[in-house]
Amino acid sequence: MCEANAYLVTGDGEELVLERVDQLVPQEDGVFLQSIFGQQKILKNVKIKALALVDHKIYLERKED
Amino acid sequence: MCEANAYLVTGDGEELVLERVDQLVPQEDGVFLQSIFGQQKILKNVKIKALALVDHKIYLERKED
Repeated sequence: MCEANAYLVTGDGEELVLERVDQLVPQEDGVFLQSIFGQQKILKNVKIKALALVDHKIYLERKED
Repeated sequence: MCEANAYLVTGDGEELVLERVDQLVPQEDGVFLQSIFGQQKILKNVKIKALALVDHKIYLERKED
Protein backbone atom coordinates (compact mmCIF):
# COMPACT_ATOMS: atom_id res chain seq x y z
CA MET A 1 0.00 0.00 0.00
CA CYS A 2 1.20 3.47 -0.80
CA GLU A 3 -0.29 5.64 1.87
CA ALA A 4 1.87 8.06 3.90
CA ASN A 5 2.08 9.21 7.49
CA ALA A 6 1.15 12.86 8.14
CA TYR A 7 3.37 14.91 10.43
CA LEU A 8 2.90 18.43 11.77
CA VAL A 9 6.28 20.16 11.65
CA THR A 10 6.89 22.78 14.33
CA GLY A 11 9.93 24.48 15.78
CA ASP A 12 10.17 21.60 18.22
CA GLY A 13 10.20 18.82 15.63
CA GLU A 14 7.59 16.59 14.02
CA GLU A 15 4.35 15.39 15.56
CA LEU A 16 2.59 12.41 13.96
CA VAL A 17 -1.00 13.49 13.36
CA LEU A 18 -2.40 10.59 11.31
CA GLU A 19 -0.93 7.30 10.13
CA ARG A 20 -1.42 5.72 6.73
CA VAL A 21 -3.16 8.62 5.03
CA ASP A 22 -4.85 7.83 1.73
CA GLN A 23 -6.86 10.99 1.01
CA LEU A 24 -5.85 14.59 1.67
CA VAL A 25 -7.88 17.61 0.63
CA PRO A 26 -6.71 21.17 1.36
CA GLN A 27 -9.57 23.32 2.60
CA GLU A 28 -10.10 27.05 3.03
CA ASP A 29 -8.78 27.02 6.58
CA GLY A 30 -6.93 23.71 6.95
CA VAL A 31 -6.65 20.19 5.59
CA PHE A 32 -8.89 17.14 5.55
CA LEU A 33 -7.15 13.79 6.01
CA GLN A 34 -8.50 10.25 5.72
CA SER A 35 -6.52 7.12 6.49
CA ILE A 36 -6.79 3.77 4.71
CA PHE A 37 -8.80 2.63 7.75
CA GLY A 38 -11.39 5.37 7.17
CA GLN A 39 -10.26 7.48 10.11
CA GLN A 40 -10.83 11.16 9.32
CA LYS A 41 -9.24 14.29 10.72
CA ILE A 42 -9.67 17.95 9.90
CA LEU A 43 -6.74 20.10 10.98
CA LYS A 44 -7.48 23.82 11.16
CA ASN A 45 -4.96 26.55 10.32
CA VAL A 46 -2.59 24.04 8.71
CA LYS A 47 -1.18 23.69 5.20
CA ILE A 48 1.04 21.27 3.31
CA LYS A 49 4.73 21.98 3.77
CA ALA A 50 6.05 19.15 1.58
CA LEU A 51 5.45 15.60 0.39
CA ALA A 52 8.12 12.89 0.39
CA LEU A 53 6.17 9.99 -1.04
CA VAL A 54 8.94 7.42 -1.38
CA ASP A 55 9.55 7.95 2.35
CA HIS A 56 5.76 7.76 2.96
CA LYS A 57 5.71 11.19 4.55
CA ILE A 58 3.36 14.17 4.38
CA TYR A 59 4.71 17.24 6.18
CA LEU A 60 2.20 19.83 7.39
CA GLU A 61 2.86 23.19 9.02
CA ARG A 62 0.87 25.94 10.70
CA LYS A 63 -0.27 28.78 8.48
CA GLU A 64 1.55 31.99 9.28
CA ASP A 65 -1.41 34.35 9.43
CA MET B 1 7.69 2.25 -4.90
CA CYS B 2 5.11 4.64 -3.59
CA GLU B 3 5.34 7.66 -5.77
CA ALA B 4 2.27 9.17 -7.46
CA ASN B 5 1.41 10.69 -10.81
CA ALA B 6 0.59 14.41 -10.81
CA TYR B 7 -2.41 15.61 -12.80
CA LEU B 8 -3.62 19.12 -13.52
CA VAL B 9 -7.40 19.13 -13.25
CA THR B 10 -9.21 21.61 -15.47
CA GLY B 11 -12.75 22.01 -16.72
CA ASP B 12 -11.78 19.76 -19.61
CA GLY B 13 -10.48 16.87 -17.55
CA GLU B 14 -7.09 15.79 -16.25
CA GLU B 15 -3.71 16.45 -17.82
CA LEU B 16 -0.75 14.35 -16.66
CA VAL B 17 2.01 16.81 -15.76
CA LEU B 18 4.64 14.55 -14.16
CA GLU B 19 4.85 10.81 -13.62
CA ARG B 20 6.14 9.07 -10.51
CA VAL B 21 6.45 12.10 -8.27
CA ASP B 22 8.46 11.60 -5.09
CA GLN B 23 8.86 15.15 -3.76
CA LEU B 24 6.32 17.97 -3.86
CA VAL B 25 6.83 21.36 -2.23
CA PRO B 26 4.17 24.09 -2.42
CA GLN B 27 5.70 27.46 -3.17
CA GLU B 28 4.49 31.04 -2.95
CA ASP B 29 3.20 31.02 -6.51
CA GLY B 30 3.00 27.35 -7.49
CA VAL B 31 4.38 23.91 -6.75
CA PHE B 32 7.76 22.22 -7.14
CA LEU B 33 7.68 18.57 -8.22
CA GLN B 34 10.47 16.03 -8.47
CA SER B 35 10.08 12.52 -9.83
CA ILE B 36 11.88 9.39 -8.63
CA PHE B 37 14.07 9.82 -11.74
CA GLY B 38 15.18 13.29 -10.60
CA GLN B 39 13.11 15.12 -13.20
CA GLN B 40 12.00 18.46 -11.78
CA LYS B 41 9.12 20.74 -12.69
CA ILE B 42 7.90 24.01 -11.26
CA LEU B 43 4.29 24.77 -12.07
CA LYS B 44 3.28 28.40 -11.60
CA ASN B 45 -0.14 29.54 -10.43
CA VAL B 46 -1.08 26.01 -9.35
CA LYS B 47 -2.05 24.47 -6.00
CA ILE B 48 -2.88 21.04 -4.64
CA LYS B 49 -6.51 20.11 -5.12
CA ALA B 50 -6.35 16.66 -3.48
CA LEU B 51 -4.17 13.61 -2.87
CA ALA B 52 -5.34 10.03 -3.44
CA LEU B 53 -2.26 8.12 -2.44
CA VAL B 54 -3.55 4.56 -2.64
CA ASP B 55 -4.49 5.39 -6.25
CA HIS B 56 -1.06 7.01 -6.75
CA LYS B 57 -2.60 10.32 -7.74
CA ILE B 58 -1.83 13.96 -6.98
CA TYR B 59 -4.47 16.35 -8.27
CA LEU B 60 -3.44 19.95 -8.94
CA GLU B 61 -5.58 22.88 -10.01
CA ARG B 62 -5.12 26.47 -11.12
CA LYS B 63 -5.26 29.09 -8.42
CA GLU B 64 -8.34 31.26 -8.75
CA ASP B 65 -6.70 34.66 -8.38
